This record gives sequence, structure tokens and C-alpha cells, in this order.
Amino acid sequence: MKKSALQAARAAYQPKLPIVLQSAVKIVEGEPTHSVADQDEIKHLFPNTYGLPQITFEKNTAPAAGKPVNVGVILSGGQAPGGHNVISGLFDGIKKIHRDSRLFGFVMGPGGLVDHNYIELTAPIIDEYRNTGGFDIIGSGRTKLEKKEQFDKGLEIIKELGIKAIVIIGGDDSNTNAAVLAEYYKEIGADVQVIGCPKTIDGDLKNECIETSFGFDTATKVYSEVIGNIQRDCNSAKKYWHFIKLMGRSASHIALECALQTQPNVCIISEEVEAKNLSLQDVVNNIADTVARRAQDGNNFGIVLIPEGLIEFIPAMKNLIAELNDMLARNAKQFAALDAAAQREFVLKNLSKENADVFASLPEGVARQLTLDRDPHGNVQVSLIETEKLLSEMVGKRLAKMKEEGRFNGKFSALHHFFGYEGRCADPSNFDADYCYALGYNAACLINAGVTGYMSTVRNLSKPVVQWQPGGIPITMMMNMERRNDQLKPVIQKALVRLDGAPFLKFASKRDQWAVETCYMYPGPIQYFGPTEVCDQPSMTLRYEHQGK
Amino acid sequence: MKKSALQAARAAYQPKLPIVLQSAVKIVEGEPTHSVADQDEIKHLFPNTYGLPQITFEKNTAPAAGKPVNVGVILSGGQAPGGHNVISGLFDGIKKIHRDSRLFGFVMGPGGLVDHNYIELTAPIIDEYRNTGGFDIIGSGRTKLEKKEQFDKGLEIIKELGIKAIVIIGGDDSNTNAAVLAEYYKEIGADVQVIGCPKTIDGDLKNECIETSFGFDTATKVYSEVIGNIQRDCNSAKKYWHFIKLMGRSASHIALECALQTQPNVCIISEEVEAKNLSLQDVVNNIADTVARRAQDGNNFGIVLIPEGLIEFIPAMKNLIAELNDMLARNAKQFAALDAAAQREFVLKNLSKENADVFASLPEGVARQLTLDRDPHGNVQVSLIETEKLLSEMVGKRLAKMKEEGRFNGKFSALHHFFGYEGRCADPSNFDADYCYALGYNAACLINAGVTGYMSTVRNLSKPVVQWQPGGIPITMMMNMERRNDQLKPVIQKALVRLDGAPFLKFASKRDQWAVETCYMYPGPIQYFGPTEVCDQPSMTLRYEHQGK
Repeated sequence: MKKSALQAARAAYQPKLPIVLQSAVKIVEGEPTHSVADQDEIKHLFPNTYGLPQITFEKNTAPAAGKPVNVGVILSGGQAPGGHNVISGLFDGIKKIHRDSRLFGFVMGPGGLVDHNYIELTAPIIDEYRNTGGFDIIGSGRTKLEKKEQFDKGLEIIKELGIKAIVIIGGDDSNTNAAVLAEYYKEIGADVQVIGCPKTIDGDLKNECIETSFGFDTATKVYSEVIGNIQRDCNSAKKYWHFIKLMGRSASHIALECALQTQPNVCIISEEVEAKNLSLQDVVNNIADTVARRAQDGNNFGIVLIPEGLIEFIPAMKNLIAELNDMLARNAKQFAALDAAAQREFVLKNLSKENADVFASLPEGVARQLTLDRDPHGNVQVSLIETEKLLSEMVGKRLAKMKEEGRFNGKFSALHHFFGYEGRCADPSNFDADYCYALGYNAACLINAGVTGYMSTVRNLSKPVVQWQPGGIPITMMMNMERRNDQLKPVIQKALVRLDGAPFLKFASKRDQWAVETCYMYPGPIQYFGPTEVCDQPSMTLRYEHQGK
Repeated sequence: MKKSALQAARAAYQPKLPIVLQSAVKIVEGEPTHSVADQDEIKHLFPNTYGLPQITFEKNTAPAAGKPVNVGVILSGGQAPGGHNVISGLFDGIKKIHRDSRLFGFVMGPGGLVDHNYIELTAPIIDEYRNTGGFDIIGSGRTKLEKKEQFDKGLEIIKELGIKAIVIIGGDDSNTNAAVLAEYYKEIGADVQVIGCPKTIDGDLKNECIETSFGFDTATKVYSEVIGNIQRDCNSAKKYWHFIKLMGRSASHIALECALQTQPNVCIISEEVEAKNLSLQDVVNNIADTVARRAQDGNNFGIVLIPEGLIEFIPAMKNLIAELNDMLARNAKQFAALDAAAQREFVLKNLSKENADVFASLPEGVARQLTLDRDPHGNVQVSLIETEKLLSEMVGKRLAKMKEEGRFNGKFSALHHFFGYEGRCADPSNFDADYCYALGYNAACLINAGVTGYMSTVRNLSKPVVQWQPGGIPITMMMNMERRNDQLKPVIQKALVRLDGAPFLKFASKRDQWAVETCYMYPGPIQYFGPTEVCDQPSMTLRYEHQGK
């Protein structure tokens, strides 16, 4: 792709490296590790890669001469800003080990390994993609590496290319698969290392050792930029309530970070809704109360942030959906033969009283959508529900009722937005550009150290880059057993928003003020060339999480 | 509002001024002017302000001592980036004339003048808003200043505050009203000047003397940023067609500018659709052909840009809507009594054959929407139609048919976006920050020169700021007679996209290549601190328009 003026200027940016990685390193092994839960099961499933020590690196004053190493890299799952910098860091890292090292990129995700679809990533290609967003250097894909046949097929091309290590850049599922792959290759003595890198804009792949997944910083800054613009518009026109849905189905980190950055009137945190066992109507009532409260001051405008996954966190909705999936699967033919009105009656008659009541309380369009559009497994496609419109419609109805009762005397007019694809491929912020480059460079060090089943980690991220601490942790350390498609599987535990964590507590301490007053912040677009307080700040989530430590 | 790190750093930015405005100026009068059309009618309606000369400024080496001047300022209509800089330029301009000059802001738009709702804009307030987006310094509104009673009411507060001139910052309608106000105050000898400033992100307020309206530059840069992000995502995942609707009902300048910046696969220009007398199905077929052509190369992804006003430019749709408005107004009661199915039958039976055919060809949801949701005048609310979904649905149907005929062998999966509010209140780009400041400062010079019914103009905008040429043109010069609500009215002629203009011709020469190949450009977010080729470029539209000159 032809470069824009910004990209041309940005191409020259040299990501900063932690001081430890600026010269040769040697490995320092910590204590043996355990999985976060279900230790016996995980140990049983990963006999060859369980219990390995955490690793840190330190300066090596007498390094042995390096040998050329061939490495394969895979981008897995949804795009996240900085993926290209992981690859360029990895490239520079293995070239540092030996100038004859080679990097192969498997094309369009994990499927490229299975299908032997690859390109060699040479210096001119790498240079073309430094500091750019997107995963288009080799493409990404969602093929799951789970089966022995896939591993064996992959091994053929690995052997053919003389590849010593595979680096998988992905989220929790992809890294779970990386661990399984590492275990398998170790078990059969294939002599192939597997290293993971923590990617996801959702921010839900984190724990004590992984302070953040890459891409979260940039994506939330893009969303906060446009939210800030809309807020300023909202506060100028003073006549709309904007309902803004934000990507991220499994956790509300994105919504929380954007709320900390922009200070909207309302931000819903799914994890809190679940913990407090709120109903959809409770959520609606809370928003309506804020609208009514602001109307008392003549402020018939505001901003509501909504995490994409909200519906699935509402206990009553989760129960309804589960029973619906089950009931409709049992009665698929009979149901399909009915017309719309009869279908509604059928559902109401065949659900338990409790779930039928919830179903009846939903706007008709949404209720109907819950009975249609099923995925290949026969499940409701919750992501098709336009939660932002659902909420504003219900809030409107609630306010109409409150008006009748004399409890609301304002106006309510809503606009809707959904932001997701807008942020996943932005050019990485300085933070993500540096972090990703370090993760990739560090992965080369892990390869050189000969380990497998490890995730590349860089810690101490709220400090200046030179102080960052590179290392690695066994992927098995992050695992527990969870039910997936009715089977217990070893998976990396997802990090949800902690209601006792510093970012949420900060938000919770401020939100009543933000609801009533108009405290909008305008973070503006990501800047690459300005003063450090503008260009180099990590996410608020990271800063608050580290403040307590 | 509390400032973000970016805003704090940006507050220090001193907008550049044209060299002419850097010292005292004197007025240079050009030839008398004429309106663009309907000269006799316009002259008859504006006997006191018609035919005035164009004005330019040049350096005044022996300026007379200035006297304090009180000025009122009004923000009118939709937000556009840079409004605060017009006001700060105006403030600095009148303070330059005399330090005791005072600036009053009428609150929430033209209604503030009528209702005597104002604040004095003092230095601390002005400083708080320099280089920020939004209109929140005094708010904006859409009250139309049209009636004698409004003008008289306004005059009371003008006299009370000793105001010598009113500056109206607005689009074509607001400036039309500014001209009427100027004429009225002149006619009654009120001794109040009225000066307009050309604002609108839509870019449709321009002509030989007004090279661009302010806000267009910043807003299109924000839209191009997010389009660029989505394109990069699209080219990484390679599985979606993104249908992106862009704000701007009356003209397609925004879509065209964004296309020039980002190079999407398809961009529809409403003015071309109208000129070629295309039907909605023609537009759909063209998109479907591009989808099919890309699928031949295995590229089942792409980007389609759609101007918000498209529907109203399609001649067949315009005819249908006109007849629908008329027919439903005549049969309102009878129609309302029918159920949905019967309403559809009723419409089909009562429309002319030609329009009934168009109605029948529309997706049912859209057809139904055309018969519902009418505005207070009984007209269809075209803006409620989700054109991006309408098009993708029709493209999907067309492709299904082409697949049956063996003319399409790919996949088609669509996602939808609408960008508008995201760009109207961004912090102004360097271009808009400078342009707006100059427009405001220049307005002060026009006030000092004693003229009325003029619009502040700054020209030569594709050159460095020092070379920009300040001046003014009589607003009547831009007027013609148009039918509004069944009456002929004097209005400023809207500037549509010229199909023989350099920006469109450039686009037209490239679009076949962009359709088939993947030539996406990534402009990235607006930068305020970097190299000049990144930070200081005006819009592509302006650059191409000036290239030929």
C-alpha cells in the first residue's frame, strides 16, 4: 500500500527497547509455576510443559556466538494495533542472534500453517510495515489449531523450512492452542518451540504477569477520540442523548477505559450488572433516572457508553437465552411452521413462567430477534442485537411513564453509534508501538533460550520503556478448566473487570458526579510527534492498576 | 471543561495570520457586484445592500486611532470545527482596534439575540476555548432570523449593549438571513452592521470568492481517519464489505473528499447519480458488479462510501417521494385506519404506475418507512432511511441473482457505519485553526471599515498562510431566487459537486483502478505537532481546485 504523509513520517520511528534487551541477554529462571486453578487436571493434560519456571532476562556480558534460526509467525483472530511491530521486533531480534536467521509468515492465520501457505518476510517487506496498523502483512484468520492432524500437517512445512520455533500472536483462545501445540511437539520430540504473544483490543488477556494485551491502548484511544468529539457536539447542541456501544463481548475493559478517558454521564459495566444481579429493566431504569435528573437542570442531553456484551451478562437474559436455545432446538420444525404472531404465543407458552415474563417485557423487535437468526449451533446470535437501540427504546418508554407520573419534565431524543472496526487497525500509539516491538524482540530471546510453551511478557509498563522488564511465563500457568461446547477444556482464564480493582473503583467514585454534571473530557486524536505527556501515556486502566502497587 | 493533555498543549498554539492582517489595514474597493442570478429580483429585495463592491485589504501605513467597538456574535446551525477560533480571532481583532472593545456572545444561536440571552466574552473565557472544537462557548441553535418582529426585538438588546455590529457564523441559510437582517437594519437606519462567516462541514457554501467553508477540512480528516482504519481492517480480515454513510445531505463534497483521501473501492456521488438519471437499482447494480469483479480475484471484501443525501438525488426516488407526500396528505385519515398490509396495497393502488413500480421494487422495510415517520410538514423523513443498509440489502439480493446466473462466485457479507457527529466537534486542524482565526480577525477589520451585509472572506488558501488574502464580499452577490415551501425566496446558491471540477475528475480518473485493485490509503489521525507535510495540508478538494488555476 502506498504510504500517506503520516505513515511516511512515522516509518522512521524507532521503537524504544527496554534497557535489558539493548544488549545480549541471559536467562534467569524463577520458581516452578502452577496453573491458576485445576492444577491436577492441567498438569495431567500438559505433562511436558506444566510447572516450568517463570523467566526473566538480564544482561549477558559473555554471550556465546549465535547460530542462524528460522522462525515462523502467525497472526490469529481479530486485528489489534501493533501486530506489525511484534513481527518487526521478532525479525530484528532473530537477525540480532544471527544475520542469516530467516522469518516465515504463515498467511491468513493458523490455517496458513496447516495449508502450507506462507511467505518469507524479508527486510524490505518488514520495513514497509513498521509502525503501521492492521494485520495485512500476512493477514489473520480464525482457524482453531486443535487437532492432531493439523499439528502433524503443520510439522511437515515446519520441517521443510527448517523452522525452529513458531510464534503465535493471538488472544486467549489462540494462546491456549499455542500451549496445546507446544505440548504436542514436545511430546512427540519434534524439536519445535512454540511461543505466544498476548494480543487483543478487548484487554481481557491479562494477569499478574501480563499487564495488558497489546492493541488495547491504541483502540481505546481511537474510541475515546470519537466519543470525545461526540460529547463536545452533544454539549454544544444540547438536544440529544447519544447511546454508544463499544466492541468487546467478553469483558467491559474497553468501556471502562473509555469512561475514564472521556467522563460520560453513564457507562454500564457488564461485570457489575452481573454481580448485582440486575435485570434489563433495572439497567434501563438507572439510565432513565439519570436522564430525568439531568432534565431537572435543563440538560436534555447526555452520553451513555454500553459494552457490546452487556446482554449476556444480565442474569435474567442469560437464563432466558439458555432456555430459548434449548426449547427452540427441541421444537424447531413446529416453530418454523408458525407465523410471527403465533411464534410469539408459542414461545410465551413454552417457556418457564420466569423466562416468559422476561421475554414479554422486551420490546417486540428484540424479542423476535431472539427467536430468529440462529448460529450454526442453533444458538441465538446475541451480537446481532442492537443493544444501544434496545436500551434507548426502553429508556424512552420508561421516561414516557415517568412523565405521566410527573417524575420527568424534560425531552428525550436519542442517537446511536457502535464503535469497533474503527479502532482495531489504527497505527499503534507510541505505547503499543514500543510494547509490541519489545514483545516481538523478547520472543526472539525466548526462542534463543530454547524454551517452549511460553508467552512473551514485558512488565513494569507504567514506567518509562527503558525500565520495562522482559521475560516469559509458561502458558499453562494461566490456565484452568472450563466448559466449552459441553466439554471440560483447559483454557486461559479470561480477565474480567474486577469490581475491587483500582480502575473500576476510580470510575465508581466519580460516576455520580459525571452523571449529573457535564464533566466531559476531550482526549483528542492519538499524537505521534508532540510533547511526551500527550504522546507517551499508557492507558488509564494500566496507570490506575499500577498506582496501588 | 477540564482540559486534556492534548488540549493543554494545544492551547498554546498561536494561529498564523496572513501578512496583510499582521498590521493595520485599509480597505480597497473593487468593482460593484451582481448576484449570481435573478439580478432584478435580488436588487429589488435588497435596495440598500445590493451591488456593493468586493473588498480587499492592504497594509495601512498611517492608520487613524481606533475607537472602542462593541460586537455581538452568534453561532448558527450545526457544529463545525473552528467556530471557537472565529470567535477568538474576532475578539483579538476588535481588541487590536481598541483595548476597550467588548464582545458579546448570544447564547444557543440566533434565538439568543431575539430572547436577549447573552454573555460577555472576556479574555479568560476566550483563552479557555482557543483552538478547541465544539460550539459550547456560547452554544448554537437553529432559530431562523426571518421576521421583522425578531429583528426589532434583537435591536432592543443591540441598542442596550451599544453593539455596533453583529457577526453571524453559519451556513448558507444563516448567511441568507444575515443579508436580510443587514438590509433591514440599513433600511430603518438602525446603524448596526451585519457580517457573515462561512461555516459548514458539508463544504457546500463556496464559490469563486469563498474557497471553502470552515470545518470541512477537519471533519473530513476525522472521517478519513476512521475510514482508513476500517479499510486496513477490511484488507486484513478480507471477509467484509463495509458500507459507510457520510454526513452531508445536500451535496457530496464530504464523500468525494474522503474518497480522494482514502481511495475506497466505491464512492457514490449524488450529483452524478442525478446527472446520469440513475435509478436506485442502477446504483445497486453498479456496486454489485464491483463486488463480483473483485470476487473474481478472490477479494470478497471492500469499502463503499455513500453520501447521506443520495436518496433525494435519485430522480425516480425524488418523484416517488413527492407523489407519496402529496397522496398521503390527501388521504391521511383513510390511510391511518388501515393495517400494514392494507397500507401497502393502498399506496400501490393510488400511486401513478411509474411511481408504484419504483415503490414495489424497494425492500419492504424501506417502502414502509417511506409511508411512516412524517415530519411536522407531512413530508417523508428521508434522513431516517438507513441508506447504507438499504443499499447493502439490495446488493445482496442482486448478487444472489447473479450467482444463480453464474455471474458471481464469491461471498458477500456486509457491515454498516454512519459517520457524522464524530467529526463536527473535533479540535480544528491547523488549517481550520488558522483559517477560522483569520476569518474572525478579518471580520473585525470589516466592522472597522464600516460595511454591512458582507461575508468575511480569506482567499488563496492553498498557499502558505502568510500569503492568504483577506477581504469581504456582499452576501447578495451569492444569491438567487429559489422555491422554498412554495414561495420564491432569495437564498445563497448551494455549491454542489461539479462534475467538470478538478476534484471529481481526479476521482473519476482513478475509480476504476480503485474498484478492482486494493489501493487503500491510510491518512491517520489529525496531527498537530509533526512535520508540516503531515500537519499543514489543506483538503485534497481545495488542492485540486487550485491546481488548475
